[in-house]
Amino acid sequence: MNIKEKIAFGKINQMRNDTLTSDKIRIGFVGGGPSSFIGYTHRLSARFDNRFNFVSGVFSQEEKKSKEFAISLGIDPNRAYSNYKEMADKECKRNDGVEAVGIMTPSGDHYSIAREFIQNKVHIICDKPLTSSIEDAEKLEKLVEDNKIVFALTHNYSAYPMLREAKKIVENRKIGEVRLINVEYPQGYTAGIKKEEEASTLKWRLDPKMCGPSMILSEIGTHAHHLLRYVTNLEIEEVCAEVKTLSPELSVDDNAFIILRMSNKARGMIWVSSSATGGENGLRIRVFGSQGAIDWLQDEPNILKFTELNKPVQLITRGSSMVSDFSLESSRVAAGHPEGFFEAFANIYTEFAEEINSRKKNIISTPSFPTISDGVKGIKFIFAAKNSSDHNSKWQKI
Amino acid sequence: MNIKEKIAFGKINQMRNDTLTSDKIRIGFVGGGPSSFIGYTHRLSARFDNRFNFVSGVFSQEEKKSKEFAISLGIDPNRAYSNYKEMADKECKRNDGVEAVGIMTPSGDHYSIAREFIQNKVHIICDKPLTSSIEDAEKLEKLVEDNKIVFALTHNYSAYPMLREAKKIVENRKIGEVRLINVEYPQGYTAGIKKEEEASTLKWRLDPKMCGPSMILSEIGTHAHHLLRYVTNLEIEEVCAEVKTLSPELSVDDNAFIILRMSNKARGMIWVSSSATGGENGLRIRVFGSQGAIDWLQDEPNILKFTELNKPVQLITRGSSMVSDFSLESSRVAAGHPEGFFEAFANIYTEFAEEINSRKKNIISTPSFPTISDGVKGIKFIFAAKNSSDHNSKWQKI
Amino acid sequence: MNIKEKIAFGKINQMRNDTLTSDKIRIGFVGGGPSSFIGYTHRLSARFDNRFNFVSGVFSQEEKKSKEFAISLGIDPNRAYSNYKEMADKECKRNDGVEAVGIMTPSGDHYSIAREFIQNKVHIICDKPLTSSIEDAEKLEKLVEDNKIVFALTHNYSAYPMLREAKKIVENRKIGEVRLINVEYPQGYTAGIKKEEEASTLKWRLDPKMCGPSMILSEIGTHAHHLLRYVTNLEIEEVCAEVKTLSPELSVDDNAFIILRMSNKARGMIWVSSSATGGENGLRIRVFGSQGAIDWLQDEPNILKFTELNKPVQLITRGSSMVSDFSLESSRVAAGHPEGFFEAFANIYTEFAEEINSRKKNIISTPSFPTISDGVKGIKFIFAAKNSSDHNSKWQKI
Amino acid sequence: MNIKEKIAFGKINQMRNDTLTSDKIRIGFVGGGPSSFIGYTHRLSARFDNRFNFVSGVFSQEEKKSKEFAISLGIDPNRAYSNYKEMADKECKRNDGVEAVGIMTPSGDHYSIAREFIQNKVHIICDKPLTSSIEDAEKLEKLVEDNKIVFALTHNYSAYPMLREAKKIVENRKIGEVRLINVEYPQGYTAGIKKEEEASTLKWRLDPKMCGPSMILSEIGTHAHHLLRYVTNLEIEEVCAEVKTLSPELSVDDNAFIILRMSNKARGMIWVSSSATGGENGLRIRVFGSQGAIDWLQDEPNILKFTELNKPVQLITRGSSMVSDFSLESSRVAAGHPEGFFEAFANIYTEFAEEINSRKKNIISTPSFPTISDGVKGIKFIFAAKNSSDHNSKWQKI
Repeated sequence: MNIKEKIAFGKINQMRNDTLTSDKIRIGFVGGGPSSFIGYTHRLSARFDNRFNFVSGVFSQEEKKSKEFAISLGIDPNRAYSNYKEMADKECKRNDGVEAVGIMTPSGDHYSIAREFIQNKVHIICDKPLTSSIEDAEKLEKLVEDNKIVFALTHNYSAYPMLREAKKIVENRKIGEVRLINVEYPQGYTAGIKKEEEASTLKWRLDPKMCGPSMILSEIGTHAHHLLRYVTNLEIEEVCAEVKTLSPELSVDDNAFIILRMSNKARGMIWVSSSATGGENGLRIRVFGSQGAIDWLQDEPNILKFTELNKPVQLITRGSSMVSDFSLESSRVAAGHPEGFFEAFANIYTEFAEEINSRKKNIISTPSFPTISDGVKGIKFIFAAKNSSDHNSKWQKI
Repeated sequence: MNIKEKIAFGKINQMRNDTLTSDKIRIGFVGGGPSSFIGYTHRLSARFDNRFNFVSGVFSQEEKKSKEFAISLGIDPNRAYSNYKEMADKECKRNDGVEAVGIMTPSGDHYSIAREFIQNKVHIICDKPLTSSIEDAEKLEKLVEDNKIVFALTHNYSAYPMLREAKKIVENRKIGEVRLINVEYPQGYTAGIKKEEEASTLKWRLDPKMCGPSMILSEIGTHAHHLLRYVTNLEIEEVCAEVKTLSPELSVDDNAFIILRMSNKARGMIWVSSSATGGENGLRIRVFGSQGAIDWLQDEPNILKFTELNKPVQLITRGSSMVSDFSLESSRVAAGHPEGFFEAFANIYTEFAEEINSRKKNIISTPSFPTISDGVKGIKFIFAAKNSSDHNSKWQKI
Repeated sequence: MNIKEKIAFGKINQMRNDTLTSDKIRIGFVGGGPSSFIGYTHRLSARFDNRFNFVSGVFSQEEKKSKEFAISLGIDPNRAYSNYKEMADKECKRNDGVEAVGIMTPSGDHYSIAREFIQNKVHIICDKPLTSSIEDAEKLEKLVEDNKIVFALTHNYSAYPMLREAKKIVENRKIGEVRLINVEYPQGYTAGIKKEEEASTLKWRLDPKMCGPSMILSEIGTHAHHLLRYVTNLEIEEVCAEVKTLSPELSVDDNAFIILRMSNKARGMIWVSSSATGGENGLRIRVFGSQGAIDWLQDEPNILKFTELNKPVQLITRGSSMVSDFSLESSRVAAGHPEGFFEAFANIYTEFAEEINSRKKNIISTPSFPTISDGVKGIKFIFAAKNSSDHNSKWQKI
Repeated sequence: MNIKEKIAFGKINQMRNDTLTSDKIRIGFVGGGPSSFIGYTHRLSARFDNRFNFVSGVFSQEEKKSKEFAISLGIDPNRAYSNYKEMADKECKRNDGVEAVGIMTPSGDHYSIAREFIQNKVHIICDKPLTSSIEDAEKLEKLVEDNKIVFALTHNYSAYPMLREAKKIVENRKIGEVRLINVEYPQGYTAGIKKEEEASTLKWRLDPKMCGPSMILSEIGTHAHHLLRYVTNLEIEEVCAEVKTLSPELSVDDNAFIILRMSNKARGMIWVSSSATGGENGLRIRVFGSQGAIDWLQDEPNILKFTELNKPVQLITRGSSMVSDFSLESSRVAAGHPEGFFEAFANIYTEFAEEINSRKKNIISTPSFPTISDGVKGIKFIFAAKNSSDHNSKWQKI
């Protein structure tokens, strides 16, 4: 009985649920302390479907602050730490220690932090991008594979139900052979920053050790890159890029145009920017094939525009009877009631929990969420694009 | 220091948070058992900001099912019951009994259920509409007032951040004197229902004892009615209505047109329908004043269209620096990242928790969420509109 | 060979054309002098497809001004007059006198002016509404019929290609049985007018003899009324209306809500307003049937939203291969190149010319443009709605 | 008295008009015979504002057909010719010969045709792109300058009122310093063409002598290029391009991505395609500056999105009181009534006529329409981009 039949026969009325068939996963967090938006996001996402118990964390490098914040979250302060090594060490000695850890620090620290937990067989859910160097990325990948760790990277956009519908449409060849791709992510975040505000606004993003060789590619470039690969199931073979600082007030790059040669001879374009004045989070992906096209924009995340050759544009809506099971299973509320950013983020947490439960039962599946391998490819993309730009936009193989 | 200053000075980076300054509220639920969408919605909303512990519930009229479902939610099965009287009775004898109860049964039962808990000083958060009769509504109002209960009615639409911005814009007279109002909620839910499917699809909505005198007014009419009052801060004085069954397959009404005479001489219109074929949840409110206008549509909930006389339409976006503190405090994520239905619903739960905490400290405030008084007005509106329609659309005072 | 085949086989590349198979029609104008927008509109529409020679006119009540304006248009000043009786008299004595006359004066004058020409077998294209009284409307209808005159009323909105597509979709029962209709036309034209500006802005619209009993119904109400009848092919049986002056600065009505009972038991709503602050020309029609729905908005005139029951919304685009021949024949440019207001208006002029040519050949056809009969119904609608409103919204038969 | 004052004081009610202060210009056409869409477009544009008399033309290379078509347009068949040399020769001997000629043949012929008329001091309005070679373009420029000819190139998009508003906004530095530009024109025109249909569909576009070195750059690339220069008043210094054939059924290129380095250090992107399946004419320009941004899309031509730093997006509407005189003078109908493709095209014809009249009075002005110089730059852009693509996307100076 598939999800549509279950809905039709009244077996279920909602799609995702908050009921458990296994124990909740014991999770801890490294990063995301007081006043962190991404901390709230990770925790809310973990609460969404009732899959985790929050048991531990490093919420500050000051022990007192870390413990106080733990209390405010309802976590035992004895399990709040001031550094991740101590946390890994102590938690892993407990019978009821963390089974999973969410990492939301700058990417330059991801490898070192993850390593401590992975060596103790703790599963990892990690903010993007994976690392700030290719070397770290590859070492991390090896660790994850050697230790059979469940590793999720929070490229949350790919978990929007209508992007998953887009993936299915492409996969089922409803648009035929992919020929042309355009992904854009025009933010205006840095357009108004003054030189004297740069440090307080961009913080660690100014430090290549933490952020990698390109601010804009690290911040949103890998989101665009992952989305393109996720939806099309194609790899990028070569890039030709112009990565520049357009605002004279900034010391890091704020715009990238990247032309793409795809594995199947298609051509594509990625444009990411924080200097698109007035832009908020207008992530958009368009894929054109021999028989049709899809078009998705984060500003209207519950709609997918799907066009078949010589037919009208169709507005496929989330949660409707028109979408695939895969998309429906990623939904929570009936068509017409808007879902947003948090639901997509929560999908990754819920699927991460389900994957851990599968592993406990020795079931090997292909996760729907972004994995360590996606993360490594993202870092290689950043370096290739930056390298192309540094060589006057010469084509670079990835 | 207001919220904008707090954000600007880095005191906080997010708006709502999940950190606690008091103990979590112990909550139980009546209704919302296995396969209930509204049950999932209430529970997710209660989890959102980490304000509640789930401790009890009636999840089925069969004891075994109720207990099994409790277990799947992580609730002690000893505190799962098969009827609300038992729950009220037993919980109220415990030191750690429920402090609040969420009710998500058909509206005909709301009064009887709420009464049991209110008499024991348990706070109530209740699905809409309030009741199925004016008599019940008024009795419930008296009980709530006499017992100084915090009572929240989940007209969740009014908790969208951009509707709260709309309310502030009207309140601050940025559109001048309100002259003209149009609220529409065109759903297509019943358009394709066949006679033989009616009972299984509409269920208790076919029973006036449970649903009140009008299916369409009860289902979505009170949402429209509340939204109009919430945003404009005006009351409706008289209604002229045509409430009809347009689909020959249905035995209940599926469309209502209602012309409104407002307390301040303005005129308005409410149109609600489940026979607007293809419609999903396109709730829209437009308010026109002597100096400007606002326009909000649930399909694009993160945008408010605001127009000043003889100036361009402005697209005010949620979470941006343009919005009021009130709207910002109802937001969770930065501008451009879409929020949706659940965030609005969760606002009511979080504010309900905050109000309970205030009461514990004997602080009396004016809640932002819909109250018992709003609920009573909603029921009177239903009866007045139905009455007008039954008298060939004669104007009826409310 | 239909139009699509003609296009496919390269017989034609455009849809409408400017090539003639008969002589051009000799036309004159009454009204639309210097600084008149509607005058420019009528003349441009007549020039669009090269179907008319402009030979005569009354462009001012001052002879000198009328002649000067004629010269500026390239019309022989000897055939420019200062009153319509003189024009009718002199033109009808000429061998090369006017065959058709465009009337663009206030509606109170339409009957008297038209009569002079009709008696001389001159065809009429007339601005809306038809007249300012039912009596005049009926007398005019009789004259037109008795004299076998081609009479076109410029309800131009009905000539948008995508509204004609809507008409065809309804006619072909692609939305099944019509059950529900909503037409709105929210303008903000009068919202900012001050008492002292009223006379100079609204002019003859303040005079019921010229404008009829309701400003707002006369100005745009008949547009909404005609559109509804045109698209659905249904008649309105009864109306229940609230027609009011919402702006305290105005002496005429500026808003009307009208509930409709249709000939086929469907229900509908017309809302027209000039007090919808910030509104421009957002005319919209939605028709919901048992099997689907259509939705059209003048702000996006080249798109028709068409939904089939339980299927995605389709965006049918003007000039595309998806549209009917009728819609395609009303188009001029390929899909994606926007057409607008003037093209719709010009369709009426071009079809008026074609109808005159048909009559010359004694071919009787059913015109696509609004006729005298539509005009009479429009006036009766105005009076019925106003009458209902004057009787506290009592239902009035039309 | 500027145009807004004129409107406010009732001196005029419309913006453009069809009244003459000089004699009409005698115009002939080369190209645009029976079944030509572009022929209809040029003639309609010339009729729009009553500025031209059509007196001559080459409508076919067969004399009989040319004369028959002339008759159908109301042109004296004695002045219809079968080749342009004969037309130039005979017309220029007449006292009442053509003063202007509209050329709408493939671009490879433009230079030869134009030369014949220019030598006889006939003014030229010519379809785009200017020529198919740089050599022809430069020779034509010299001829035009030496002979003081009024030369208009029909890059019609730049004559949309709201693009002219965009130009004014940029010019008045309301968006500050331009930093980032994105122009896209994704058509789907060739996506479905089969190999065996290519010749009949693309015709002369398959012949580089007629079309230049790149089909896609010639067809729409120069439109994008001109628009970018027109709105920003910046020149492109260098291009890095990937111009490819994505459809395996085609023998000409169908997609181009072009990264731009601008004269002021800004960066930009042009994307033009005919392989964007489902695309119609979605031309879009976005310009981001240090203080704001503009965004215009042909699908909604009557709206310009204008954003000031840290303020809401404003929807500036055509014909409204918010727009500049320049934009208002390019409009014809009040705000809210949609204008489209033909009005923009007609603006070029009307301004071409006005420029000719100015020249007659020896007034030298700066035309608003695209000139010979714009045309030459367009051809150089095509060749530079193609050259870059042919050298593995190496940067090319223009």
